[in-house]
Amino acid sequence: MRDASIIGVGRTPTGEFWDKSLRELAVEAVRAALVDAGLKRVDAVYVANALGGSLNGQLHLGPLLADYAGLRGVESYTIEAADASGGAALRTAYMAVASGVVDAALVLGVEKVTDLVGPPRTAAYSNVLDADYEAIQGATPTAMAALLMQHYMSTYGVALDQFEAFSMNAHANGSRNPLAMFRNLIKPGRFASAPMVAPPVNLFDSAPEADGAAALVLAASEKAVDMAPLPIRIAGSAVATDSLALHDRVDPLFFAAANLSAGRAMAQAGITPAEVDFFELHDSFTVVSALSLEACGFAARGEGWRLAAEGQIDPGGRLPISTLGGLKARGNPLGATGVYQAVEAALQLRGQAGDNQLADVETALIQNLGGLAATAVSHILTRLS
Amino acid sequence: MRDASIIGVGRTPTGEFWDKSLRELAVEAVRAALVDAGLKRVDAVYVANALGGSLNGQLHLGPLLADYAGLRGVESYTIEAADASGGAALRTAYMAVASGVVDAALVLGVEKVTDLVGPPRTAAYSNVLDADYEAIQGATPTAMAALLMQHYMSTYGVALDQFEAFSMNAHANGSRNPLAMFRNLIKPGRFASAPMVAPPVNLFDSAPEADGAAALVLAASEKAVDMAPLPIRIAGSAVATDSLALHDRVDPLFFAAANLSAGRAMAQAGITPAEVDFFELHDSFTVVSALSLEACGFAARGEGWRLAAEGQIDPGGRLPISTLGGLKARGNPLGATGVYQAVEAALQLRGQAGDNQLADVETALIQNLGGLAATAVSHILTRLS
Repeated sequence: MRDASIIGVGRTPTGEFWDKSLRELAVEAVRAALVDAGLKRVDAVYVANALGGSLNGQLHLGPLLADYAGLRGVESYTIEAADASGGAALRTAYMAVASGVVDAALVLGVEKVTDLVGPPRTAAYSNVLDADYEAIQGATPTAMAALLMQHYMSTYGVALDQFEAFSMNAHANGSRNPLAMFRNLIKPGRFASAPMVAPPVNLFDSAPEADGAAALVLAASEKAVDMAPLPIRIAGSAVATDSLALHDRVDPLFFAAANLSAGRAMAQAGITPAEVDFFELHDSFTVVSALSLEACGFAARGEGWRLAAEGQIDPGGRLPISTLGGLKARGNPLGATGVYQAVEAALQLRGQAGDNQLADVETALIQNLGGLAATAVSHILTRLS
Repeated sequence: MRDASIIGVGRTPTGEFWDKSLRELAVEAVRAALVDAGLKRVDAVYVANALGGSLNGQLHLGPLLADYAGLRGVESYTIEAADASGGAALRTAYMAVASGVVDAALVLGVEKVTDLVGPPRTAAYSNVLDADYEAIQGATPTAMAALLMQHYMSTYGVALDQFEAFSMNAHANGSRNPLAMFRNLIKPGRFASAPMVAPPVNLFDSAPEADGAAALVLAASEKAVDMAPLPIRIAGSAVATDSLALHDRVDPLFFAAANLSAGRAMAQAGITPAEVDFFELHDSFTVVSALSLEACGFAARGEGWRLAAEGQIDPGGRLPISTLGGLKARGNPLGATGVYQAVEAALQLRGQAGDNQLADVETALIQNLGGLAATAVSHILTRLS
């Protein structure tokens, strides 16, 4: 098996781009990544997208986006795993390069959510839940997260305001990221009184759906050393799943797929949680952040929220998270989110994260979740040399 | 790079199954493939599906189907490339096994089209075209195929009845396949007078959308020899793309992606078209069959239809195609079609194709197309030992 590294990254701002189409966003990200990699062409483009069919009337994105990006003819198809599509596409590109069938692979995450607004968009997004047992009851991803948060709060005796530090950290980091969707700070004490979306999930708790596109170029590490000044090695890669419906889980308060995939990725990289310098986790909701920290070995069960409350997740803390704003402030461009995580982690490891740069970071864990962790994709990134 | 082989196959009948859901069809195929492979568990399930979001309100099939098939926890996500999804998922599983990150991989193609009928289904299927330049004009895949066929007929001076042998062969083969959707014969001379769908594409020309699920189990060839009595080696694998919109192509009568991917797969396998014993092609329309034969090196340009008219594609001919009925008679379960092709080709190579068994076949080319060959996935299969 060949070792694989990231040799190019690119991404658009995240937000509501009423003047840009899905293909325009995609092309912007591809061009930026190719320029960054110093390449004109790649062998394959693995597209990550969740709701193209439902929101844009556009499936079959592989040939469309490869062509518009000037890469007509290359291998290309779409990977879908709800909002874990980006991580899963990175996994696919990793396998393509590791196997040797592809030399240079591009991962392209793109989502254009603002082609639909209001209830039709919510209905489309609910296609990522179990259609026959959850969505049919009127459940939405946010409603399911609210049930999970209620369960967490009552089981562990945690109050609403004890989640506020997750959102404050995300917005503080987002305020320094010029490409983030939200750059405003959340003042201490404002969180718990924010308007409710689905109690107890409020406006400052749930990550906003966003338009955006991000891209990565991967190559074999043995070649990457000569191709890029700062290649970022993929030291671990894993995907795991859990039941799609929340009610089917043995223990809804344990993210089994997150645990499995993070464990496998760390084992492949030969590291323990103590050696992870920062963690780009899937902060779609604050309770999801807490449960992810617990599942991945950074906190005891029921204690994940404490890492936030104690400042350990801040840029100067023991385990910085959402370092460029995370899903909460950078925005959640669903199928593209996992690619943004990888781009941002690579920039941190290269020392190119601008005002968001962390000090002395060598090893990143990135974890992209689909739904409420029905899919979990984990990657370990390190500097190659 | 590890060599990879197919060690298990399974599939449901194809047709209109009003009493079965998407997940039920999927589980049937997975169980059959696992039993055939003699395995209880695999490391990964790559799901091929095209219209789950649009027809079934169900995306995020990886965790759902892995769980329902008794494989909770495994790596799983969805591959989408319109009706080439099945081939693309096989490609992904091939890379997973070849890279060594996965030992046993399952490819699961599933489509449940009868959850919607009439215009809404047609509209959903049109999501595989270019939304902004084709579908927005009211174009459907069948309408685009009709334009292509008109162009072929007028360019090469071919009459409608000269395409009939494609459909007659498919239905003759389907009549001997107990799992095929259509088992009726088409009498000589009936083709050209069939009711029109979109002139010149008629009822006997276009493949029917079908419900169905098929599955394959892949393992490293070095292990496959001890795991299965008749492992089928994947000797070549390639994906290529063309512009999604037909009007963007330099020459619409040349399937460039089909040419590229078949060429690459044959080069990897070290064979020429003359060494291909049979060809499971993507006979969604007769003109697509003709153009596929031309693009893959089996006929000169404008001459593909002659292979059918001269009987060369029949079971006893030089290059049998659609040997278990093809998309036309077995049915076209969109995202699952490429997996059916691989299952059927593997059965032929094993000598287990029942009344459809070909004599003396050692090498198969299978080619799965997305839309009108915007995506083309080609694989070469041979017996391992």
